[in-house]
Parts: sequence; structure tokens; C-alpha cells
Amino acid sequence: MNQAWWQQACRAPDEAARAQAEARQQQLTKPAGSLGQLERVAIQLAALQGRERPSIERVAIGIFAGDHGVVAEGVSAFPQEVTGQMLGNFVAGGAAISVLARQLGAALEVVDLGTVQPLALPGVRHLHLGAGTANLAQGPALTGEQAQLALQAGRDAVLRAQQDGAELFIGGEMGIGNTTVATALACWLLDCPAAELAGPGTGLDDAGVARKAAVIDAALALHGPAIGEPLEALRRLGGFEILALVGAYLAGAQQGVPLLVDGFICSVAALAAARLNPGCRAWLLFAHQGAEPGHRRLLQALAAEPLLQLGLRLGEGSGAALAVPLLQLACRLHGEMATFAEAAVAERPA
Amino acid sequence: MNQAWWQQACRAPDEAARAQAEARQQQLTKPAGSLGQLERVAIQLAALQGRERPSIERVAIGIFAGDHGVVAEGVSAFPQEVTGQMLGNFVAGGAAISVLARQLGAALEVVDLGTVQPLALPGVRHLHLGAGTANLAQGPALTGEQAQLALQAGRDAVLRAQQDGAELFIGGEMGIGNTTVATALACWLLDCPAAELAGPGTGLDDAGVARKAAVIDAALALHGPAIGEPLEALRRLGGFEILALVGAYLAGAQQGVPLLVDGFICSVAALAAARLNPGCRAWLLFAHQGAEPGHRRLLQALAAEPLLQLGLRLGEGSGAALAVPLLQLACRLHGEMATFAEAAVAERPA
Repeated sequence: MNQAWWQQACRAPDEAARAQAEARQQQLTKPAGSLGQLERVAIQLAALQGRERPSIERVAIGIFAGDHGVVAEGVSAFPQEVTGQMLGNFVAGGAAISVLARQLGAALEVVDLGTVQPLALPGVRHLHLGAGTANLAQGPALTGEQAQLALQAGRDAVLRAQQDGAELFIGGEMGIGNTTVATALACWLLDCPAAELAGPGTGLDDAGVARKAAVIDAALALHGPAIGEPLEALRRLGGFEILALVGAYLAGAQQGVPLLVDGFICSVAALAAARLNPGCRAWLLFAHQGAEPGHRRLLQALAAEPLLQLGLRLGEGSGAALAVPLLQLACRLHGEMATFAEAAVAERPA
Repeated sequence: MNQAWWQQACRAPDEAARAQAEARQQQLTKPAGSLGQLERVAIQLAALQGRERPSIERVAIGIFAGDHGVVAEGVSAFPQEVTGQMLGNFVAGGAAISVLARQLGAALEVVDLGTVQPLALPGVRHLHLGAGTANLAQGPALTGEQAQLALQAGRDAVLRAQQDGAELFIGGEMGIGNTTVATALACWLLDCPAAELAGPGTGLDDAGVARKAAVIDAALALHGPAIGEPLEALRRLGGFEILALVGAYLAGAQQGVPLLVDGFICSVAALAAARLNPGCRAWLLFAHQGAEPGHRRLLQALAAEPLLQLGLRLGEGSGAALAVPLLQLACRLHGEMATFAEAAVAERPA
């Protein structure tokens, strides 16, 4: 039997370019290490792009959206029709990610994997994988075919972005109820009970969070015995948009496109991707640590060093978009600062 | 006797504009509060600029530089001639702040208050207040006249920036030895021993930090009894560039120019400014929490919420410049996102 695409090898970072970038950082007119995390990110990007002086000028943002059967359990503060309404807002230019993409000059693509009411919105790529997922509290959220199509949808988005010359891919997500789904996956991936990870999502009160945690614990009890590996966890606990993110991260790592991971839900997808194919991890940069309580735990499991901590909890890829200027400025500093020799500035005595 | 200029009233933020901005934030198509700190900063800027939808397009950066007599005590990892050499690097475009200013389209002005070797560099505004300050380990660092001229230099820079239409002013600093000076001031302002605040600056080892702390404690023992108020602390412990920053912050607050505070040294100046004239505090935004150990304590004393934590310790205003895109994007999100009504998106049920 052929190996599935997502199991195929990820590209290896360029260690020679990494070493060149590290050497260059030591020669720039500043105390060694004084640009902190920006130095590390420039060096990482050098290794990923295979050049001493990396650049992040062309950015592609793909938003993956879908509805969730588990919303029937009363786990969200917003009504489910908001998923579809927000798709219209994304393409009309009024959502946070629309504003950010415009300011960054980034390409924005909106992929609808399946909403409860099938939609046909100009400017949205509708895939109609189903009328939302099934309710994970009662059975598997996705069929095997849906899972493969959702993974493939993420891969396709990255391939299109690469064709358009993207030097960085940002995946975003929209789907009322998806912090419940993501938290269930996080609990399986981190092997911990829902009470440790469940949070308010878009705005649940304490009673709502407790109800959400109970739904998740029951779902883990239902599905856990049947889950042997991450792909089965993704299929049973689901989320069309979360599988698409997993597919995007794996394809980016295989194709050599650096990936900037957004918040809690994207970090769950990143951890699942890294479990499915560990070579993927090197291609992931982490934009921010959000307000959802489980996010810190996920970032620790990924040994991630997020760039921002602004208390964000919006999703849509918005936190990642906000971190793009930092990546761009890190590259510009790395590429354009003078060396001690060029500027005739005395170095620190050895 | 006339009141000195720095004691005159700071402008009051516009509370009506603040209330309008707060109301607008509640109507934008996102869960309430989900843009975290960016919502608070947009609302603060609305109050400072006196309009519901603030904007930060024109940014002015003023770098204040000077030498320090205390370098004779062996408190810096770099030789003292680097202060002057870096002035050349700033205007030649090779320093970190030069690269950042270029990328941001920000105006960059370099003010030399007094280096050990008097310089005449094209593009630098040389004030020649002295051949560096006197050694604070042996006596007052500045004369009373120097202190007034240094404060005025900061004010003048802000007035020029305002004339050019700046919507935000960033003060930066350069001066070999100035973390020692800033730490001495921080110890006086926070009433704590040097061991609690002294750090590596541009790269001292542990023995160097201990020596620096001993120099500071001795200076505080020498000057402390004679210091009754913040201006006398600034004069005796000094730093031409630190007094210029204080003058810039006070003038900005009086003139209605929002101020973005850079790292440890700028935060010392900010705390001194807020002690001299408490109305100044409302006009200060804080860019980042840097690597210098005393910085967190200063930010706490200022009740500041910095935007970034990237382990920066460069100075030059670089950390503030790195935070500018976040302020700009916060304003764009605030100003350009659709409301629930405009986008026909369902609000969360009350």
C-alpha cells in the first residue's frame, strides 16, 4: 500500500544557511543577542528559506471554516449561523483578518469546508464536505472520506499560495463551537482532563465552561478506547477546519513554505501535525500565546516561543497576521544592519 | 518666581472620545474583548488624539546621545568611543533604529548632547553640553545649567516633531555606560539597593554586574542625603540623554503628542517624568519589557502594560519602533472593522 501524502518526508532546513545567518548576527552593530527573539527568528527563517538573508514580503492567509455538530450540546456563546455570516464578512472586508490582510498586503483566501446551511458566497471557495460535522458527543465527527478531503483542502491552499510566490503561509479558522473541538483534541494529545484545558472560547461564563468540559470528558470516554493514533483522533473529534489546518501545516513543511501558527485552535492542529509527521515542527513559527487557558500547555508541548502575548482570543488567523510585521522587521534588521567592520564601530573587547 | 516649563499642566485626555471608542469596540464583529490589549491601546489613543477613530501614521523618532563620566569606573562592556561611532552609524543608515525608521517611514533625528570627543557629523544635531557628564561616583554628573539645557533639548525635539505633524513620538538613547546611570536613578526612584536592579546592560559578566552595583550603591550613599526631589536626582546621577528623554516626555504630554516609551533607560526617564509632573503618565504608551532585570519593576511602578516581550536590550528606541506596527494595526482594526449591524452578523445573545 502506498504511503499517504501526509506521511511523506518534510523538507530539511538548510543548516549551511543557518550557520551563515548565525555568523552574520554576531557581526551586526549591536551587543550580541540584544535583539533577543528577533535574532532567533531571523536565523530560523534563514534555515527555512535556504539563504543567509531571509525575507518575508509575500504572505498568504488561508481561512478555513466549518460548522460543528457539537454545538447542539450548548457549548458556544454565539449562535451557529455566525459561521456563515462571518464568511460573508471576511470577503466583504469587515472582519479583523480582512483589515489585517489589507494592511499587510497579504493574499486572503476563504475556504468553506461545510456550514450547516450550504452557502454560495462570491469570493468564498465552498467545498461542501457536509452540513457541518456530526456531533462528537454521540459518534465520530467526520467520516474517513471527509477527513481525507479536509486534509487535502489544507494542502491545496498551501500549494496555491506557493504557486503565487508566498514566502509565509498563515492558516486561520472560523467555526462556532470549534474551541470545544480543539480542546477535546488537545486533551487527547496532551493526555489530560478537560478541566485543565477548557476555557471561555468566544465568551462562555463559568457555568458554560463547566458544561463544555463535561461534554469533552464524555466524548473522550466515548471515543478514547477506539483512538490509536492522531489521525483517528482528528476524524472522531473532528473539525473540518482543524483537519484543513493540519493538512496545510504538513504540506507547507513538505513543500518548504514557512508556516506562522495563530492561536489555540491552530496550535492544536500544529501539535497534531507534528505528531503525525515530526519533521513538520521545524517549519512552524508561533505568533502568539492567546487568552485560552490551554494554549500555554500546547505551546510548551511544541517547545514553541511565541512572539506576542496580547490576550488575543479571536482566531481567524488574526494573531498571526499581527505578528507578521515583527517577522518582516526581523528580516530587515538581519539583512540591512551594518557590521562592525562596515560601520567602523569598535567591537566589545574579547 | 515663575513656574518652570516642566511643571506646567499636561493636557487632559479627551474622555468623550474615550467613551465613543469604548462603545465602538463593543459593536465590532468579534467577541467582546477578543483583541485583548489592542482594544485598550486603541481606546487610549482615541482619548489622547481626541477622536473616536485614532490613527498613527506619522511617527517621529528622536535619539538622544551622550557620554558618561562613570565609565571611568569600568562599568561597561564596550569602549566609550562607541557612543560617537554609533552616532555616525545612525545617520549612515546601518544601525538597528536606522533600519526600523526606514521601514516604518518614520522621521529619525539624532541629537548629540555631548560626547567625550566633540564631534561634527553631518546629519547629527550636536549640542555640546559638555565632554560627557562628570563621574557620578565622585560628584554631581551635571551642573544645574546642563540639566536645564538637556531637558530643553528633549522638549525642542518634540516641538519639532509636532510641527512636522507627528502623531506619535519615540525617544531613543545611546550612551556607553548609561544603564549604570539609569539603574542609579531607578534605585533612587524605587528606593531599593542596586543588587535588586543592576543587570548586564550591553553584556557585562557576573563580576561586572557586581562591580556596577557597588559603584551605584556608593554613588547613592554619596548623593542620597542631598537629593530631595526627582530633578535633583536627575542632575546628580545624570545622563544628558536621560534628561532629554524626561524633557521630551513632559513636553509631549503638555503639547498633546502621544509618547511610546522604549526599554529600561527610557522607562527610568518615564518614571522620573511622572514623578516630576504626574499628568504626564496618561500620554505614555509602553512598547516592551526588555531583558534588563530592573525593567519589570519600573513598569510595575508605572502601572504599564507593555506590548512586547522579546528579550530586547539594545536601546536606540528600537523596541518602541518594533511596536509601532501593532499600534497602527490596532488603530486600523478599531477604525475599519465592520459593526455587527453593518455586516449583518448575529451578536451574542445578551
